[in-house]
Amino acid sequence: MNIDLHAGFEAHFAALKTFLEEQESCFEPEVHPLLRGVLAHPGKRLRPLLAFGSGAGVGPHASLIKGAAIVELVHLATLIHDDVLDGADKRHGADTPNRTHGAHAAVLFGDALFAHALVLASEHTSSEICSIVARASRDVCSGEVCQTFARGNTALTLEEYHKQIRMKTAVLFEASCRVGALLAGHPREHIEACAQFGSHLGIAYQIYDDFVDLLQDDKRAGKTLGTDAASGKLTLPMILERNRRGGDPAGELRQGADPRKVISAETWRECFRVLDGEIAQAEQALAPIAGSPSPVHLLRLTEYLKFSAAKLAPTP
Amino acid sequence: MNIDLHAGFEAHFAALKTFLEEQESCFEPEVHPLLRGVLAHPGKRLRPLLAFGSGAGVGPHASLIKGAAIVELVHLATLIHDDVLDGADKRHGADTPNRTHGAHAAVLFGDALFAHALVLASEHTSSEICSIVARASRDVCSGEVCQTFARGNTALTLEEYHKQIRMKTAVLFEASCRVGALLAGHPREHIEACAQFGSHLGIAYQIYDDFVDLLQDDKRAGKTLGTDAASGKLTLPMILERNRRGGDPAGELRQGADPRKVISAETWRECFRVLDGEIAQAEQALAPIAGSPSPVHLLRLTEYLKFSAAKLAPTP
Repeated sequence: MNIDLHAGFEAHFAALKTFLEEQESCFEPEVHPLLRGVLAHPGKRLRPLLAFGSGAGVGPHASLIKGAAIVELVHLATLIHDDVLDGADKRHGADTPNRTHGAHAAVLFGDALFAHALVLASEHTSSEICSIVARASRDVCSGEVCQTFARGNTALTLEEYHKQIRMKTAVLFEASCRVGALLAGHPREHIEACAQFGSHLGIAYQIYDDFVDLLQDDKRAGKTLGTDAASGKLTLPMILERNRRGGDPAGELRQGADPRKVISAETWRECFRVLDGEIAQAEQALAPIAGSPSPVHLLRLTEYLKFSAAKLAPTP
Repeated sequence: MNIDLHAGFEAHFAALKTFLEEQESCFEPEVHPLLRGVLAHPGKRLRPLLAFGSGAGVGPHASLIKGAAIVELVHLATLIHDDVLDGADKRHGADTPNRTHGAHAAVLFGDALFAHALVLASEHTSSEICSIVARASRDVCSGEVCQTFARGNTALTLEEYHKQIRMKTAVLFEASCRVGALLAGHPREHIEACAQFGSHLGIAYQIYDDFVDLLQDDKRAGKTLGTDAASGKLTLPMILERNRRGGDPAGELRQGADPRKVISAETWRECFRVLDGEIAQAEQALAPIAGSPSPVHLLRLTEYLKFSAAKLAPTP
């Protein structure tokens, strides 16, 4: 089974690619190679996809493409800073700005990219787009500050973890949906349904991503296994396992123990139940707009996540 | 002689202080100590002063105070990132976020502060404020990327230096004037005159600040002498001295030679002539609005700069 996430939006994504490449002209020549570097190896472009899905029913018009570019640029800016802070050399298999141009240039480039996203947002006549994007960005950064301070805290509660991943991932997913639905001119009910979908999908996606860190080997995930535990970051499996049997499962993982042994089959089952529950809530959020074209596209994302999670599950 | 820069705006600055402190409630509790830290040791608040001066004639109304807070927050965010990148422990005599909470938290805190400035900007009904602030921020960061790449370039031209300081300092000075004049409801002619003033003052201020790095000892400036040369940054005196006699004056400074000897009296005189010329242009920019209350306040800034420069001049 192979889900084509971009199906039906080929023209949108082509326009987005062109639009992002054209932004080069808004930066000093010294910045161009950095921009080309981060655009050359895109990920799945989930945030633009959420914008397009939420704005489905209208064509790839300029305003919607710009909206998708804005949320992607904010996301790229946060990745660039994350990679500086983690000293990461690779992202999507390519060298990071941190690697190619040093931490100094990379931090400033991330800042410039984020500022440019807000410049684009301010070009929309309503200041609502600016507000949505700036609020989401502030929450993403505040959430990451909290996560930084929580490193090494083996007593992290489920509630605190939930708040962290909501701020770190779900707010920008939600904002992407909101921006897309708003720019497509959909009614308030449609905007809110998509926003709720984005929020639940964001939480589900981060939970899944945290599982990947423990279950998928380097070659498939394109990153190192167990980096969360190594950096003192507690994720759902570690929290649930600790809550079940006590002790310090995160510490065991940090010392190199096999995640499939440290986290019991029972805990893994509970982990996947939590993930399934969040995905179900995302799906239910779209019920009020069942007749519109948006669910057709957005539900492909939950299908994709369910499919990916099934491949990952450690217990048959 | 002692110039009270804030004279006439006591109520404005009191309201600004309160407003900035109240922003704490918009951040997660973990972020509060960081925010309190950077607000506890303010500098001269030049950017809010430019906003108030350009908006003179109206009282300290909420919209103007918010505008001043926005430009100050953007400035603080850039300082926080600068201090991380320079590994600086002290700013205005107090520990930097980089020192108190580490580079990781400091980068993210700077991001969050900048995003919050844009949230506040998006609360103004017109998206023009968002646009001005985001554009200025993008230019500041792009300019700093260029300056980073130019480190160690002993062939830097006058033109390149001028562009660097314009982007790094003058654009946010200009934006501060623009925001203040706009929010006070002044006519277009007033806004443009103040913006021009801010741009020239910003260039003059950065030229002066670069002189300070070479001429004022640690105790008075609150920072280390010759740090620009040490980090491979060419400033006006080094460029003009190199253009006059050839060789590598910046390299001599880097090796610890006395700036009063490396840079000739003739070059220093030329440097101060350039500075005076820029200050004169700032003053002339206000001619079209000579009758309004803004020049009364704004020209105090050029007086202050002339007075400070006179104290600094190495040749009588």
